[in-house]
Amino acid sequence: MKKNAEIICVGTEIILGDIQNTHTQFLSQELAALGVNVFYHSSVGDNDNRFKQILKTALERSDIVFLTGGLGPTTDDITKEITCELMGIECEMSEEVKARIMTFFVNTNKKPTMNNFKQAMVPQNSIVLDNDWGTAPGFIIEKDGKTAVLLPGPPRELKPMFEYRVKPYLQKINDETIISKNVRVFGIGESALDEKISHLVLSQNPTVALYAKTGEVLVRVTSKEKTKEKAESSIDDMIGKIKAELGDMVYGIDKDSLHQTVVEMLVDNNKTIAVAESCTGGMLAQKITGIAGASQIFGLGIISYANEAKINELGVKKETLEQFGAVSEEVATQMAVGLSKKSGADFNIAITGIAGPSGGTEDKPVGTVYIALEHNKKVWCERYNFNRGTLERDYIRNSTCLSALNMVRLSIDFSQNVSKKFMDI
Amino acid sequence: MKKNAEIICVGTEIILGDIQNTHTQFLSQELAALGVNVFYHSSVGDNDNRFKQILKTALERSDIVFLTGGLGPTTDDITKEITCELMGIECEMSEEVKARIMTFFVNTNKKPTMNNFKQAMVPQNSIVLDNDWGTAPGFIIEKDGKTAVLLPGPPRELKPMFEYRVKPYLQKINDETIISKNVRVFGIGESALDEKISHLVLSQNPTVALYAKTGEVLVRVTSKEKTKEKAESSIDDMIGKIKAELGDMVYGIDKDSLHQTVVEMLVDNNKTIAVAESCTGGMLAQKITGIAGASQIFGLGIISYANEAKINELGVKKETLEQFGAVSEEVATQMAVGLSKKSGADFNIAITGIAGPSGGTEDKPVGTVYIALEHNKKVWCERYNFNRGTLERDYIRNSTCLSALNMVRLSIDFSQNVSKKFMDI
Repeated sequence: MKKNAEIICVGTEIILGDIQNTHTQFLSQELAALGVNVFYHSSVGDNDNRFKQILKTALERSDIVFLTGGLGPTTDDITKEITCELMGIECEMSEEVKARIMTFFVNTNKKPTMNNFKQAMVPQNSIVLDNDWGTAPGFIIEKDGKTAVLLPGPPRELKPMFEYRVKPYLQKINDETIISKNVRVFGIGESALDEKISHLVLSQNPTVALYAKTGEVLVRVTSKEKTKEKAESSIDDMIGKIKAELGDMVYGIDKDSLHQTVVEMLVDNNKTIAVAESCTGGMLAQKITGIAGASQIFGLGIISYANEAKINELGVKKETLEQFGAVSEEVATQMAVGLSKKSGADFNIAITGIAGPSGGTEDKPVGTVYIALEHNKKVWCERYNFNRGTLERDYIRNSTCLSALNMVRLSIDFSQNVSKKFMDI
Repeated sequence: MKKNAEIICVGTEIILGDIQNTHTQFLSQELAALGVNVFYHSSVGDNDNRFKQILKTALERSDIVFLTGGLGPTTDDITKEITCELMGIECEMSEEVKARIMTFFVNTNKKPTMNNFKQAMVPQNSIVLDNDWGTAPGFIIEKDGKTAVLLPGPPRELKPMFEYRVKPYLQKINDETIISKNVRVFGIGESALDEKISHLVLSQNPTVALYAKTGEVLVRVTSKEKTKEKAESSIDDMIGKIKAELGDMVYGIDKDSLHQTVVEMLVDNNKTIAVAESCTGGMLAQKITGIAGASQIFGLGIISYANEAKINELGVKKETLEQFGAVSEEVATQMAVGLSKKSGADFNIAITGIAGPSGGTEDKPVGTVYIALEHNKKVWCERYNFNRGTLERDYIRNSTCLSALNMVRLSIDFSQNVSKKFMDI
């Protein structure tokens, strides 16, 4: 049976706006994937009466109430105490939890204070959720057909606690296995993608949901079956259908990002990359080197922001700059070739464009970018326009980096298809 | 009299976790600064009954209810209709709003559909909040001592609508002027700062509140007075006291970021900067070039990730690398000097360090970073350790960039104090 749920975040820092509440989005996405309906989010400060009022309403209207925060050691932390009071449940000291808390302090070289042991008081007959990422354990309390799930507030505790403690519980009470995989797609907008695979989006099991990310789209495929094997095979079938529609626009399954994917591809293929950046000003190199272990595949980047840097560092010809302008196919190509001579890398990317907000012309409006990719002494150069009418510098630079990375990806994985795009130098 | 308020966000996309709810934090911070107490946040989908239930409770327990979202043209958009129903208010077509919507479509080259004119229906006797950033107007509805403030959902409409339409209203009903200024502080942690200015944090008017930001702290000073002049002068007094305690750790008032501040300082002083980055891999250049107009002060960056790049591009000596290692004062200094010869810039920053998670040694654990700044043929080199026990690559790289920018800032603004740190090459 489909359960109705709601989320209550307890914490004065949320109500004052001191911190961004990221819990509700995280839990809502996870619960949606597990087939749990979420109908309400609420946040309330560390105040007995106001919290009690909110929780009372929640327990009346929902089957499961997820509570975050307020499990800490201070007297301000009231979530466990008030929940037990409302549900009519006593707390008792757990020697096991107490021992876990002691171990945590020993391992992290910190000293517990007396009030840390407030966290060792556990609601009777509750399921204790061991917290390997902090001191406050979580709890699942069930009574009279209602369930309260209490989770610690810090995101780096909440997320693994949900993944490793709550999810298995929900899957068990669901008597079904629910599994999701994320298909990462680059090179098509959300609405165009929606149109292209609309017949698949209608599917009831597995479900197919689209999420727009900056510059790309994530397609989440979720299957609900009696066994893990059945769920996985039905997801893989669906992913096969999506791939058949989207071809090389699918860059990976359950990948973190396009740049991580490309770095891994380069490592796996034992290839190296170098960059020469004008308008992106280091952003592409920064994305590549943001991945641990990037030093295996990346050695050199040149940020040739000024024309002199393009001439002196990359051997771009002064006449070419004068004749075609810095933002041109000719300059991008010369940058890539000059870079390849210096770097000796397998793939040499050069970027030149107009990130705005000023500098645009009628021929080359803000958002015009040329990306040249040198590989095996041949160059593939593309002109892009990333202007979506709002002249957003960050959006233009970010889209440029993604497109450059995608050119590298296509050249490794689909080299046959793109080989005709590479021209002799 | 201090008003009690709450915030309700209407939108199924929030409840499903498809989008991050940024409204509650934004509105809570703004309202806190205006002296309005916020006690509850709620979110609910585009569902008549559930929204009605939430709003009913809110109107019972709060003086002002802020509602976001659900003002669009479709039948799903129910905020205005349900609010009016609950408050017992009729809607009527406003020719003025209709004309504004037409003008918006003409200006953005789009075509209105019939349902766009649903947005021209305004609650009787309400204050219409003209929306210059989209089509849906906002409303302030007052009845029987209760106030409902309806605002459009898209953040780029919500924010200016609050700033330019709602804030003046709240200031007027408050019969007081409330003004805030943000003091930006770099080089001290939140708790240490709290200790240092604890006597000022106790102040009731102006209030002083600390907000931890990535790698820095923001101190918000808020004053409430009968007149704008009084409020401003009391804020400026308080800022003077804060500056007296913190000295050169204060990098600006109402500035967006340290990198924007440094770019502006360079522009104002007609100075140029160049960077040579190893462990930050382009992040510093990316931050600098993220500011529009950076081309005035930035021309060249070298990302010398590999040792060969340090040797070939920056003239670092092979023996120095062998003797001291790539992460050393000697190499950082040679990188800065080599860069200065190529760039001809006034300030030449070189960065070398261990961003982790691997590569650390006992002498130089993960997080060890050397930053060398060349200026006027002298070099200032500092060793940092940005390891906070969690080996976070992003944190280490980001802290490195901020510290490098801060060295430039101090060299421009406090050149007397830091001149002794610069050594002859």
